[in-house]
Amino acid sequence: MGLTIGVDIGGTKIAAGVVDEEGTILETHTVPTPSTPEGIVDAICSAVAGAGGGHEIEAVGIGAAGYVDDKRATVLFAPNIDWRHEPLKDKVEQRVGLPVVVENDANAAAWGEYRFGAGQGHDDVICITIGTGLGGGIIIGNKLRRGRFGVAAEFGHIRVVPDGLLCGCGSQGCWEQYASGRALVRYAKQRANATPENAGVLLGLGDGTVDGIQGKHISEAARQGCPVAVDSFRELARWAGAGLADLASLFDPSAFIVGGGVSDEGDLVLDPIRKSFRRWLIGGHWRPHAQVLAAQLGGKAGLVGAADLARQG
Amino acid sequence: MGLTIGVDIGGTKIAAGVVDEEGTILETHTVPTPSTPEGIVDAICSAVAGAGGGHEIEAVGIGAAGYVDDKRATVLFAPNIDWRHEPLKDKVEQRVGLPVVVENDANAAAWGEYRFGAGQGHDDVICITIGTGLGGGIIIGNKLRRGRFGVAAEFGHIRVVPDGLLCGCGSQGCWEQYASGRALVRYAKQRANATPENAGVLLGLGDGTVDGIQGKHISEAARQGCPVAVDSFRELARWAGAGLADLASLFDPSAFIVGGGVSDEGDLVLDPIRKSFRRWLIGGHWRPHAQVLAAQLGGKAGLVGAADLARQG
Amino acid sequence: MGLTIGVDIGGTKIAAGVVDEEGTILETHTVPTPSTPEGIVDAICSAVAGAGGGHEIEAVGIGAAGYVDDKRATVLFAPNIDWRHEPLKDKVEQRVGLPVVVENDANAAAWGEYRFGAGQGHDDVICITIGTGLGGGIIIGNKLRRGRFGVAAEFGHIRVVPDGLLCGCGSQGCWEQYASGRALVRYAKQRANATPENAGVLLGLGDGTVDGIQGKHISEAARQGCPVAVDSFRELARWAGAGLADLASLFDPSAFIVGGGVSDEGDLVLDPIRKSFRRWLIGGHWRPHAQVLAAQLGGKAGLVGAADLARQG
Amino acid sequence: MGLTIGVDIGGTKIAAGVVDEEGTILETHTVPTPSTPEGIVDAICSAVAGAGGGHEIEAVGIGAAGYVDDKRATVLFAPNIDWRHEPLKDKVEQRVGLPVVVENDANAAAWGEYRFGAGQGHDDVICITIGTGLGGGIIIGNKLRRGRFGVAAEFGHIRVVPDGLLCGCGSQGCWEQYASGRALVRYAKQRANATPENAGVLLGLGDGTVDGIQGKHISEAARQGCPVAVDSFRELARWAGAGLADLASLFDPSAFIVGGGVSDEGDLVLDPIRKSFRRWLIGGHWRPHAQVLAAQLGGKAGLVGAADLARQG
Repeated sequence: MGLTIGVDIGGTKIAAGVVDEEGTILETHTVPTPSTPEGIVDAICSAVAGAGGGHEIEAVGIGAAGYVDDKRATVLFAPNIDWRHEPLKDKVEQRVGLPVVVENDANAAAWGEYRFGAGQGHDDVICITIGTGLGGGIIIGNKLRRGRFGVAAEFGHIRVVPDGLLCGCGSQGCWEQYASGRALVRYAKQRANATPENAGVLLGLGDGTVDGIQGKHISEAARQGCPVAVDSFRELARWAGAGLADLASLFDPSAFIVGGGVSDEGDLVLDPIRKSFRRWLIGGHWRPHAQVLAAQLGGKAGLVGAADLARQG
Repeated sequence: MGLTIGVDIGGTKIAAGVVDEEGTILETHTVPTPSTPEGIVDAICSAVAGAGGGHEIEAVGIGAAGYVDDKRATVLFAPNIDWRHEPLKDKVEQRVGLPVVVENDANAAAWGEYRFGAGQGHDDVICITIGTGLGGGIIIGNKLRRGRFGVAAEFGHIRVVPDGLLCGCGSQGCWEQYASGRALVRYAKQRANATPENAGVLLGLGDGTVDGIQGKHISEAARQGCPVAVDSFRELARWAGAGLADLASLFDPSAFIVGGGVSDEGDLVLDPIRKSFRRWLIGGHWRPHAQVLAAQLGGKAGLVGAADLARQG
Repeated sequence: MGLTIGVDIGGTKIAAGVVDEEGTILETHTVPTPSTPEGIVDAICSAVAGAGGGHEIEAVGIGAAGYVDDKRATVLFAPNIDWRHEPLKDKVEQRVGLPVVVENDANAAAWGEYRFGAGQGHDDVICITIGTGLGGGIIIGNKLRRGRFGVAAEFGHIRVVPDGLLCGCGSQGCWEQYASGRALVRYAKQRANATPENAGVLLGLGDGTVDGIQGKHISEAARQGCPVAVDSFRELARWAGAGLADLASLFDPSAFIVGGGVSDEGDLVLDPIRKSFRRWLIGGHWRPHAQVLAAQLGGKAGLVGAADLARQG
Repeated sequence: MGLTIGVDIGGTKIAAGVVDEEGTILETHTVPTPSTPEGIVDAICSAVAGAGGGHEIEAVGIGAAGYVDDKRATVLFAPNIDWRHEPLKDKVEQRVGLPVVVENDANAAAWGEYRFGAGQGHDDVICITIGTGLGGGIIIGNKLRRGRFGVAAEFGHIRVVPDGLLCGCGSQGCWEQYASGRALVRYAKQRANATPENAGVLLGLGDGTVDGIQGKHISEAARQGCPVAVDSFRELARWAGAGLADLASLFDPSAFIVGGGVSDEGDLVLDPIRKSFRRWLIGGHWRPHAQVLAAQLGGKAGLVGAADLARQG
């Protein structure tokens, strides 16, 4: 099979990219993300047409946030778009005249990393994506494992604190409330509020107020050694690593891949995560340890993964 | 392939059973469990010989508590026997002259239930075994998933309470401290101590003291409606169901099978677990729900599963 | 001393009442609560004038939500009004020409119950007020204990769940997130959402939707035996009783008084709280147990208590 | 009044000391701690006689671990001695012919610090004693507050982690399981086990094994900058400071005094506790902050405090 198109539906833009079988993106086309479900279908088709023109495309893979059913056809529920049992595959296939595969976006990103990124050479890999929230994907025996009904690998919503923080999903204590970009900002704000004298660098990078603290400020401040920023990353890592230890008890993969915006910080965040992982790993003296690797494809993982899943059919 | 032998290594006895390809046990032989590693190898061989005499046996499967390596040959670590990197497969093969497969006992039991018990007809099944502790096994795509290094499915040791109860594994807050037979007894003792006026039936079934409360008393008292016993089962179910909800977020199986001594109580314990599972399931309105089934093979699941795994080679 | 006036500043109205030395309210006058700090001072004075006309008044006591300083003069911080270091005593004294005492409203309510309600005859009493939030007051040795700086007895903000629910105070896991009217509604909504078949009565009392559930519906439904409502009260009681057990370890009072809207439900909520208190009380076999009593003055406790504190000077 | 004797009942020895009204110890006499209740009464009397000979003594104060009743006469329950409703005051008075006051040992130590140590000049002080366990005492309005039944200030047993670590008291999640000398050793062992490469200094100070780690090694290693030791103190401080913040919400004292073996480490442990206290203090921007002071009397606080309480009668 030759070229396929991967589509990544983001909060502000929809990107379509032509991808070859080596995972190389030959051409991309992006359009703004509309606000209505029908508008989004239009935009997807428009992006596909924009990217695919002049190429011989064999299939389209779409990565979408939310629950995708076991046939990889219907979005059962999307958190940010008003999709409820949306037959996305059928709608797009009718419009673009190509086979379409729909996949959860974190699953697609995991597959991308497994095939062309940090996961190459591993048969059993768990990817976690630490962005605004926390998602992930499961590869066991060189296959993406989607669960019986398509909604596996919802890592962000395992309960790590009984009676803990309220989550957008309606439950409490979900992992993504403690190990995500949003959590990082909360950690920094709480600490800057309690001990402003340790947050000088951090506050100086923004507008000077605690409310003005943003994720990028925390990363930069941590690099400069700002105690509040360093401590906030340590807290994030404490929860991320402990969760990976749980996933090791469950899945026992040969590698974890940590992606999402947080992984862009590299060892600044990965080293504390690795340390925390070792701290909490059960039976660590008696078992080989999974590696904890940084993702390699950055924001392209989902698009590339979706394209490759479409190629595989 | 014809007949195989499954071996179950228990705390007090070692049972070997001749099993046909329908999962039927044709003959069993049990010997007491010795205290030394070498003694146990002797006992295994003796049990195998005792059961297999007069049958044409093609292979032997051994279920052992602990970490078993990815080659299903070596016990990396056993909690109750002094096995550390014990090459059990080689030792037994040399003695019995048959191919041997070693498997974690909870994995073997999961496989038994999948093949011949409650899991028949399901491709993706998660089994949990609630006995003294809590173990389990993972079947995805009709295969037992052992992890890259053989030590997957250690369900009992995911952390459900940060800074929680100390576990025999050295960590804190492990699920098996909250959802196991031992936990049930703790719940009952704490409640009987605080409100003895609600524990009359329960105390009357034992020696009348809180310290004398045993698991079997709690089951019987719950059946008679004793408030402390009922409440203790409800607490166990609260934790068991919440953990299943986490496993649903991760694995999305079509069914959970609940085995171990606790499942012998049937709906007395399964109904509260089902209720708690629904209470904590994420996104329950938007996804098909996994069934929560009682195991069917009872204490034979491990032996039958080990025999069948040996048959599969 | 003869008559004094107590003032209760509520979210929608400000009530002033003339109170005699037996705690009897002779006359009350209420005005709507304005939105600005200065407007509220005006309204307080207007209410005092309205109630006091024709009576010989000797002092005024004002109960206000928030931190009141050690001189009972300045509101350091109020959660719902834009008061920051507001010299309320001076402002009102200048206007009404009477001695004024400012007190935290939950402290005032505690004092009211101690003097004229459920606390009569006790020297050492802890009051908790379970309303929308959770507050309280401390009487030790027949005196209201305000702390060195005036801000003691902030019961609602002790941390009962590390990394728990976000609180309006900026911290996490505060007791009032788990034992308050707001918590009760959350419990009911979560349960109704997960198991609507057990919430029929509850949903029928409102508009039929989970979002439409209100506190009054839960009380009524619990009285009718609706499982979700009963279970929600039990959850509230679980946290309330466990917290009282902590307060018993700290203060060892002879009685706890439970007031606020929740106490209006009487034994429907008090019995589960008592049971939970006993469940969690440390060393319960070796110590006398504090009584857990329902408040007797209802919504008048704060006004009466403030008036009496003013009388005491 | 002139001289009084204070008695401190320790696990290995019983010390009696003659104390003047300035809190100065003029003479001490120690005897080994017997194992039986009656033996201990004998030993107390013997120690009193040994210390008091040649002095004119007016009263005896005894500090004892456990619940002491409201009459300061009877030990209701002692954790380490087989005392249950033991009329200690009467027994010793009959033998020594002097008025006797019995007090909880942590209360006595708190009183000692308030009168002659770090608490001088404060009217409202909370003392916590971080030794093997965690205890404390409450001074409000210049009086020791013992509760209605004598068993107040059991700080170590407030619940800081629901479903947390099992405590010797039978409950779970008690503060002393997280902020005590025993907890510190647990933290160090867990960390040394997980990351031995960061525990070189710590392990080198003992016998080289994780099991051999003792409290004194952790202090010394922390002073040398050993990462595992420093991190263990930080974890202790995290819990100690958060608990102090809760006590500030409840008692609002002008000062906390931190005593017990842990306070011997001075700012090594107090600075992280202060930082954690500020981190968790509710409403810290709007209220004066209590000071967190190191105890000054060391192991003598209980003896001196008991003697002074006897003097006060």
